Amino acid sequence: MTRTRVLTGITTSGTPHLGNYAGAIRPALEASRDPSVESFYFLADYHALIKVMDPARVQRSTLEIAASWLACGLDPSQAWFYRQSDIPEIPELTWLLTCIAGKGILNRAHAYKASVDKNREAGEDDDAGITAGLFMYPVLMAADILIFNAQKVPVGRDQIQHIEMARDFGQRFNHLFGEHFTLPEAAIEQHVATLPGLDGRKMSKSYDNVIPLFAPREQLKKLIYSIVTDSRAPGEPKDADTSNVFQLFQAFSSRQQADDMRRAFESGIAWGEAKQALFDRIDAEISPMREKYETLVAKPADIEATLRDGAARLRIAYATPLLAQLREAVGLRDLSKASVSVSTQAEQPAPATFKQYREPDGKFYFKLVRGDRVLLQSAGFDAPRDAGQRVAALKRSGHLDDDATLVPGDGVTREEIDAALAQMAEDAA
Amino acid sequence: MTRTRVLTGITTSGTPHLGNYAGAIRPALEASRDPSVESFYFLADYHALIKVMDPARVQRSTLEIAASWLACGLDPSQAWFYRQSDIPEIPELTWLLTCIAGKGILNRAHAYKASVDKNREAGEDDDAGITAGLFMYPVLMAADILIFNAQKVPVGRDQIQHIEMARDFGQRFNHLFGEHFTLPEAAIEQHVATLPGLDGRKMSKSYDNVIPLFAPREQLKKLIYSIVTDSRAPGEPKDADTSNVFQLFQAFSSRQQADDMRRAFESGIAWGEAKQALFDRIDAEISPMREKYETLVAKPADIEATLRDGAARLRIAYATPLLAQLREAVGLRDLSKASVSVSTQAEQPAPATFKQYREPDGKFYFKLVRGDRVLLQSAGFDAPRDAGQRVAALKRSGHLDDDATLVPGDGVTREEIDAALAQMAEDAA
Repeated sequence: MTRTRVLTGITTSGTPHLGNYAGAIRPALEASRDPSVESFYFLADYHALIKVMDPARVQRSTLEIAASWLACGLDPSQAWFYRQSDIPEIPELTWLLTCIAGKGILNRAHAYKASVDKNREAGEDDDAGITAGLFMYPVLMAADILIFNAQKVPVGRDQIQHIEMARDFGQRFNHLFGEHFTLPEAAIEQHVATLPGLDGRKMSKSYDNVIPLFAPREQLKKLIYSIVTDSRAPGEPKDADTSNVFQLFQAFSSRQQADDMRRAFESGIAWGEAKQALFDRIDAEISPMREKYETLVAKPADIEATLRDGAARLRIAYATPLLAQLREAVGLRDLSKASVSVSTQAEQPAPATFKQYREPDGKFYFKLVRGDRVLLQSAGFDAPRDAGQRVAALKRSGHLDDDATLVPGDGVTREEIDAALAQMAEDAA
Repeated sequence: MTRTRVLTGITTSGTPHLGNYAGAIRPALEASRDPSVESFYFLADYHALIKVMDPARVQRSTLEIAASWLACGLDPSQAWFYRQSDIPEIPELTWLLTCIAGKGILNRAHAYKASVDKNREAGEDDDAGITAGLFMYPVLMAADILIFNAQKVPVGRDQIQHIEMARDFGQRFNHLFGEHFTLPEAAIEQHVATLPGLDGRKMSKSYDNVIPLFAPREQLKKLIYSIVTDSRAPGEPKDADTSNVFQLFQAFSSRQQADDMRRAFESGIAWGEAKQALFDRIDAEISPMREKYETLVAKPADIEATLRDGAARLRIAYATPLLAQLREAVGLRDLSKASVSVSTQAEQPAPATFKQYREPDGKFYFKLVRGDRVLLQSAGFDAPRDAGQRVAALKRSGHLDDDATLVPGDGVTREEIDAALAQMAEDAA
C-alpha cells in the first residue's frame, strides 16, 4: 500500500506553548496514527534564521521543540523526525529551484508584501530592513516539501499561498527537466483549535500572552489564575461562549466535561473555581508528558542522536537519491558519463532484467539492471521469497511505487525505471 | 609566509574561445605562478544553471572548460581546482547569507536592473521572465568567495559591484555573529586584452563571432581567414591600429614581432599574408596545448577524478571547518553541547595547552586542547622538530594564522582559538 506523505515543519524560534500543543502538536500526532499516512516532522532551523539573530535561542528552541514533540508521543521509529539543517540536500535543492522560480511570484508573497506595506506606512523605502531571507522563504519551503515529494502539507489558511508556490516551482521544474516532483497539496485543517492567551487575544508569542506547554506545575497554576475574565461575581451566571477560561477548558476536556462546565457557568460558578477546574484538566493531560519532557531535556545528547539518526536514514531513503536524479536532470553530471552516453546513443538499449542475489550480511537483495548499469537497488530481505515476491509485484505493476527501500542507481531517473518496468509488464502480458 | 588567496570562477555555459584565453585564462595562470599567491579556480556550474536550461550543454561546457584550463597549464597540485557543485558548503552558506543580505541591495544589482529596464522598454511587468536565480546571483557569488575567505577576486569593472556586495554581506555577518569572514577585494585587471571577434566587435559568444580556443587546425585557419578587413589591395599601406587582424596578432606575439608586423602593415602587406602570419603565431602558441586538450577530453573520467579530488581536499582544508564555525555562530548547534555550556558557564575555564604526539602513520602531530576539548588539530609533520617549531611560532604570535593544515575542533570558533593563543603569548611574556 502506498502511504500518503504528510509533511509538517516547526520553526525553531521559540518555546512551545499550549496554543501550539492544541493547534498543532496534538492534531498532527493524532493524524500520524492513521496507517495510510507516512509522516514527516522537521525542525525548521534554516527558517528560524530568517527572524532570529540569537544563536543560543535557536539552539534552545530546537532542543525544546524536539523534546516537546517526543514527550507528546512522536515515535521516531514510526514517523520521520529530523532537523532541516541536517539535510544538505535541502539548501542545494533551494538553489536549483531558485534558478527556475519566477521572481514575480515571490513579489506577491503575503509575508513579504505585509513588510513592504509596513515600510510604506512608515514612509520608508519599500525594502527597508527586509532581508533576502524573508523574500526567498517560499523557495526554501518548496525545497523542504519537494525533496521528499510530500503529498500533503497541513497548513493554516495564511500558508496556502506557499503551497501553491511550491506547486508552481515543482511544475516548472518538471516542465523543464522531466517529471521529478509530485505536486503537493495544502491540507487545510478544518477544526484547528485556536486557543485564547492570558489576555483573551489568540495565544501567540508575539502577544506575550502564552502559557508554556511544559511550565512547571506551580507556574502553570499561577498563569491560569492570571487569565483575564470579566468581573461577574460568584453566583452570577456567566457566558461560556465569550469566556477565555471556557474556551481553554473545552480544548482540554471531553464533550461531556465541557457540557457540564457550560452548565456550571450558567449557574454562576466563581471564576476561581472555574480556573481551578481548568488547571486540573490541563494538568491531568500535560503532567505525564511533562515528566517525559524533563527526562528528555536532561539528556540533550540523546535527542541530538535521535535527530541525526532520523536525518541519516531519511537521506539514504529519499533525499540523496532524489537529489542525484535532479542534479543529473539539470546537467550537474559526472563528466566521465558524457562521452559514454554520446557513443551509445545510437545503439538499441539492452532489455532490463532483475537479478536476485545474497550478500555477505546474509540478506537477500535484488536489482534491476540494463547491461552493466544498475537502474534500481533493493534493501536486504530476510527471506529470498520476500525478495522474489517484491520483484514479481514490480513486474506486474509496470511502474515504481513509493518504497523507501528501493533506491535508483546513480544518475538513473524515475522515468527510466518506469519505462523499463512498463516494458517488462507489457512483455509478460 | 601567508599567501594571498585569489579566487577565479568560470561559468560553465559555453566553449572557451581565444578571447577567454587571452583575457582570462592566460593572465590568470601567469599570475598564479607568483609564489605569494594561493590560487582558487572553480567551475561555476551553479551559476550556469541561472541561464542555461540545457543539461547536456552544462555538462559539455564543464568538461571543455576544465580540460582547457588544464591544457593551458593549470597544475592542480599547485592551485585549488574544483567544481562549485562539489562543495555542498556553498549552497548552505548561500542560505546563511540570504538570511542577512538586505533585499534593497540586491534590487540595485546591475544585471538585475538591466533586465528590469528591458522589460520596461518592452512594456512588460518589471519582473517578467526574471528568475529568482538572476536576482540572487550576488548572494551565491558572495558564498563562493567567503567560504574560502578569498582576499582578491580578479574581475572586470562590471563585476566590482558584486565584490562590494560580498563585502557587505560578509561585514553584516561578522557584525551579527563575530569575525568569521575576511572581506574580499576586487582586483581590477588593468591590462586585460579584449580581443576583437571575426566581425570586429568584441569576441563574445553572444555576438556569434568567436574563434574556439581549441578549434582543429584547419578550422582555426579557415576562421582566421574569414576575419573582416577593409578592402585595401596588396601594396597599399594599412592602418595597424584600426585592424582586427593586427590586434589579434599583437595578443599572440612578442613586442618585437608586433613592431615588425606594424611596419609590414605600413609597407602594404596583403591581407592574405597578414592572416597567414596571424594563423602561424596563434597556432604556434596553441598547438602544444591543443594536443594536451585532445588527450584530456578523451579521458573525461580523469578530469572528473581531478575535480572531485580538488573539492575533497579543499573541503577538508577550508570549507568544512569554516562552515562548522558558521553553523555554530548562527545557532545550528549540537544540542548535546547546550547544557554543557550552560552548566560550566560559571566555572573558570581550564588553561589551553599544546600536546604533541605521533600517529600510526609515523607522522608527528600536535593539537591545542582545553581539558577534553580539542581546539585545534594539526596535519602530520615528517619530523618532530617541524611540529615543535610550528607550536612555538603559534605560542609566540598569539593568534591563528591562515594555515590550511590546522583545522579547528568540532564547533570551535576562531575567536576561541585566538583567545587561547593570546593567553599563552601573554603568559609567556
